[in-house]
Amino acid sequence: MRVDDLDTPVPVIDLDRVEHNLTKMQRYCDQHGLALRPHIKTHKLPQFARRQIELGAAGITCQKISEALVMAEAGCADILITYPIVGASKIAPLAELARKTRLTVSLDNAVALDTVAAAAHQAGVEIGILIEFDSGDGRCGVQTPDEALALARRAHGNGPLAFRGLMTYPRGPQTVPFVTAARTLFEQAAIPITTVSVGGTPGCWDTHSLPGVTELRVGTYIYQDRATVGAGVATLDECAVHVRATVVSRPTPDRAILDSGSKTLSSDRVAPSVGDGFGLILDYPDAVITRVNEEHAVVDLSRCAVKPAIGDRVRILPNHVCVVTNLHDAMAVTRGGELIGEWPVAARGCTR
Amino acid sequence: MRVDDLDTPVPVIDLDRVEHNLTKMQRYCDQHGLALRPHIKTHKLPQFARRQIELGAAGITCQKISEALVMAEAGCADILITYPIVGASKIAPLAELARKTRLTVSLDNAVALDTVAAAAHQAGVEIGILIEFDSGDGRCGVQTPDEALALARRAHGNGPLAFRGLMTYPRGPQTVPFVTAARTLFEQAAIPITTVSVGGTPGCWDTHSLPGVTELRVGTYIYQDRATVGAGVATLDECAVHVRATVVSRPTPDRAILDSGSKTLSSDRVAPSVGDGFGLILDYPDAVITRVNEEHAVVDLSRCAVKPAIGDRVRILPNHVCVVTNLHDAMAVTRGGELIGEWPVAARGCTR
Repeated sequence: MRVDDLDTPVPVIDLDRVEHNLTKMQRYCDQHGLALRPHIKTHKLPQFARRQIELGAAGITCQKISEALVMAEAGCADILITYPIVGASKIAPLAELARKTRLTVSLDNAVALDTVAAAAHQAGVEIGILIEFDSGDGRCGVQTPDEALALARRAHGNGPLAFRGLMTYPRGPQTVPFVTAARTLFEQAAIPITTVSVGGTPGCWDTHSLPGVTELRVGTYIYQDRATVGAGVATLDECAVHVRATVVSRPTPDRAILDSGSKTLSSDRVAPSVGDGFGLILDYPDAVITRVNEEHAVVDLSRCAVKPAIGDRVRILPNHVCVVTNLHDAMAVTRGGELIGEWPVAARGCTR
Repeated sequence: MRVDDLDTPVPVIDLDRVEHNLTKMQRYCDQHGLALRPHIKTHKLPQFARRQIELGAAGITCQKISEALVMAEAGCADILITYPIVGASKIAPLAELARKTRLTVSLDNAVALDTVAAAAHQAGVEIGILIEFDSGDGRCGVQTPDEALALARRAHGNGPLAFRGLMTYPRGPQTVPFVTAARTLFEQAAIPITTVSVGGTPGCWDTHSLPGVTELRVGTYIYQDRATVGAGVATLDECAVHVRATVVSRPTPDRAILDSGSKTLSSDRVAPSVGDGFGLILDYPDAVITRVNEEHAVVDLSRCAVKPAIGDRVRILPNHVCVVTNLHDAMAVTRGGELIGEWPVAARGCTR
């Protein structure tokens, strides 16, 4: 079957571009002495996690225990979970995971630390700890180096836990001031910080300019998307996933309906400076997807000199590719423009 | 296991409220002589489709062939697909579906009509046709009764197709004028309109005030959600699905992080008149979910007199419940407050 014959809507991966993106990022990290720890949330595919490790990644990053279990069972031997794990229902699955891989967990509070400690006890193996700090993003993270030290001490004295360092997401303006102050404080306390991990594709290419940072976590870089192109860190030619959709209706001269709604593209937007609408139609860049319902994309063609006909197929660059991956049970895969298969998205829907 | 012991995040269905909602809508349609044809896109569960039919529904509505196949295989004998089906890749699956159920398809263009005709030929069975018209929503639909008549004639002369009437979504201000004009036009052409189908939970309770309308398609009514409560067609006590989430971080006095991000709640918003943020925290109605990333919900607690602690569980009413269903492989199910199981969402992810 050719890619043009696939039933639509369908997300399509370009393996050549994936390989280019993976190699380019590994080379950047190697050049600057940074450990690369790719976040698998973007692809959710064991095939790509293994390839990232083959190319030199220090390990992988996961957000949830359930997706880490998929990756551990696929052979990933070193996993960081960048999410505070809290509560009794998490202890048994975290212990199961800790028996299968070298595990590190980031957290910003004592309840999460005690949950992880209980899992380490149950598993009978060491679990590493990174303390998450807020570098300006306003999501998770301790607010001061003193808070980080208190948590590190609590980990340090807690048998099966191994304090390993600090992490933040992405890498806001407070990154360097926080790390600098924390290094001084932790040295005085004789607690070594071996890892300082930052994240996010949008700021990735100047990670080497952040003194004290040792590790880069990036996810979107494998596929890139409209948001990262808009952020100036990738080109359109580096985007490795598009959604193929069909024009199913042309109710008026200036309106088209595509079979790719929010169940296919998500409702995620990009910054107004990056563009309008719910994805970029690569074949009709002047068209705007003004609205998505679950199965419909409503397209304004008023600025298009040439307009698509009913039955035509179009390629859409998603605004945010990570959430697209999570919507689909399988992705079509191409190499050299040829369809080579459909891969099940093994870690799709892993919210726990 | 108790519902409080479930791992989070998890969507939870209240079967008692479901039964109340299904019964109330069937009673309304019975009282007014309307056929009820529930849209299964909201629940995607054969169990509920069968219950809707048991209670008196004329059949069900699906959006895509793949979800209709799940329902046909579960015993649904009369299915309407309210989506223009276009292209060669759709013919074989549509023919397969037509062999399994009494099938009707809505459309607004000749390419779709020819696709459906090809499937009917291949299946060797009749497929019904409704012509979709635009009653003011600006999505799919023919713009004039003349266009509808031209398509109906094309169906009429096309062996295995049976023209059955008109449909629109939802039921905008042009509904009655269009239907009135079309009925006159079609009578002159001696083409009977047996069905006029309108849709949408927000306007459901005055469908009987639309002369000429014979059928109501509603989906969200089974669960209701923050949007339909905001539209004034349901009460909070009628909402039958909530998401149970855990507070995983409290980085500042006024900020909480929940483990229910856009992979759990979606990024769908409600109208500003209905409320702020990405869902209503039922236990803390003054809290605002200001941001969702894939696994994080960032909550502003500044207006809350009492604030949740790390490890606390909260119940979230989704903004738009249909897209929540589509994100989860399974839903927890309760009756009388007791957990009775987890049901796989059989028609999840059916975009084709």
